[in-house]
Amino acid sequence: MNLNDYMELINKKLDEYMPENDFPQDIFKSMKYTVTLPGKRLRPIMCLESCRIFGGNIEDAIPTACAIEMLHAQTLIHDDLPCMDNDDFRRGKPTNHKVFGEANAVLAGDALISFAPQIILKYSKNLDSEKLVKIMEEYVQYAGAYGVIGGQVADIEAEKNWKNNAFGMKPDELLNFIHNHKTADLFRLPLRTGAIIAGANEKDLEKITDLAQKLGIAFQISDDILDVISTFEEMGKTIGKDNNAEKLTYVTLYGLDTAKCKLSCLLEECYDIIEEFQVKSEPLLEIISGIKKRVGIDDNHTR
Amino acid sequence: MNLNDYMELINKKLDEYMPENDFPQDIFKSMKYTVTLPGKRLRPIMCLESCRIFGGNIEDAIPTACAIEMLHAQTLIHDDLPCMDNDDFRRGKPTNHKVFGEANAVLAGDALISFAPQIILKYSKNLDSEKLVKIMEEYVQYAGAYGVIGGQVADIEAEKNWKNNAFGMKPDELLNFIHNHKTADLFRLPLRTGAIIAGANEKDLEKITDLAQKLGIAFQISDDILDVISTFEEMGKTIGKDNNAEKLTYVTLYGLDTAKCKLSCLLEECYDIIEEFQVKSEPLLEIISGIKKRVGIDDNHTR
Repeated sequence: MNLNDYMELINKKLDEYMPENDFPQDIFKSMKYTVTLPGKRLRPIMCLESCRIFGGNIEDAIPTACAIEMLHAQTLIHDDLPCMDNDDFRRGKPTNHKVFGEANAVLAGDALISFAPQIILKYSKNLDSEKLVKIMEEYVQYAGAYGVIGGQVADIEAEKNWKNNAFGMKPDELLNFIHNHKTADLFRLPLRTGAIIAGANEKDLEKITDLAQKLGIAFQISDDILDVISTFEEMGKTIGKDNNAEKLTYVTLYGLDTAKCKLSCLLEECYDIIEEFQVKSEPLLEIISGIKKRVGIDDNHTR
Repeated sequence: MNLNDYMELINKKLDEYMPENDFPQDIFKSMKYTVTLPGKRLRPIMCLESCRIFGGNIEDAIPTACAIEMLHAQTLIHDDLPCMDNDDFRRGKPTNHKVFGEANAVLAGDALISFAPQIILKYSKNLDSEKLVKIMEEYVQYAGAYGVIGGQVADIEAEKNWKNNAFGMKPDELLNFIHNHKTADLFRLPLRTGAIIAGANEKDLEKITDLAQKLGIAFQISDDILDVISTFEEMGKTIGKDNNAEKLTYVTLYGLDTAKCKLSCLLEECYDIIEEFQVKSEPLLEIISGIKKRVGIDDNHTR
């Protein structure tokens, strides 16, 4: 399957898994609204593809893949809240709290954090209890304070304070901490769980975790670059916010050219890891070219 | 053990389980702040006692019991937010967002939803994977949109709209839905998981679930009564809010005397269920007397 086939499969299953008429409807509609906003579905695709690479049946990974997209949607809903980034648009549509109100948006996010593992437990019929427990362990690790939330908290603190070595960390250390968790942990979770579902060995798990880390940081660098060079229409959200707020990003810290350079290097390292796998992965290679393309690395479009 | 012994055990373990110096400290301090506010620890006690009643070892239920208190704290943090009940005090102390700010309070709540099952998975050394999966299933059911959050969403909607038969439900149906989930589900979760840890059979699970439902509603009625008759000092939070807001409560709907009457009946039914268990449960009986005492049922103090 290519990225597009995967995306269509994920979209179909997300629509199936997300009820909209259960009671009270407000919460289910609000959850479904953000989960089913158009998106590239990179994270669930990584889960399915990681499962395939290590010899598993992708059918077995579908509930986990979709659950991770639900968790991702949760982080978007809460990140967009007035008390956080206060964003009005996401993926080209009004943010959850703009449509359903702030209280509902808080609760829809909360509900998704439990709904996602509920989907895994309910629909992973071919996975035994040992594997389910392992997947739950991964989920709670990367969804929580040691994962994406830790990254988000550090990001908020950094916004006010990064120039003064917030937390006693140098800006580059802090920036790495933030995106190692805020971004890369949501790549680790699908790549690792996909491998676990397939029954991958420890060595392969290490490799895929390393890939997740590099791909995650690369993706974030490309996002920071895009925030500077793209337009509202391309991003589907308010752009140029990073710069206005003098936010700590790979671009504000290193400048545009060095950021691109770091991005290229990371992607090269990703290629190296992917080539070591016994099964060739076109979709992962496509994801890397996609990242290059969005920031114009191939065609020398540097500003 | 009596209620006080249980409470001390739970407090000791909560303090152990909640880190405060992990990075980023803001989030861990904020989580720990609300989880360790003084409280009666009724929910975790129910988990330990249910485990004991059905022949289990309470040691095995400690991580789950504490996790449920963490989930309970999560609901308090988010319910108190400005966009929800906008409360400044909880258990006699400033609410989480008053101390740590709104963004941190949202994220501390989010983090607790995953941190709680992480504690279960990490510390339940004597439970096999089958039992862990069952406990996870219970957790995600009662923590989510089909559980406490569904109750909270209905409660918010009811606040604006209960007199006009919100959701096409009569006020008494709606009130029951709200507290069957918002309150009773957080009694079902500990009583059921305690029983599951002990290996209780289906029939016993049904009984304990029935007890949870009745005790949960009874507890909520007593809360609604207290809101009318008590003072700030007794409750540790702003009181009389229900009445000011013309909120749907057992007292506004039925009046104080009928509410007390319903409460007494439910508690009698609870006694009946408890007497059927093969093991006598002083702590559950103590919880019932505690509910009676707080609203003055025994001593005829009706207003």
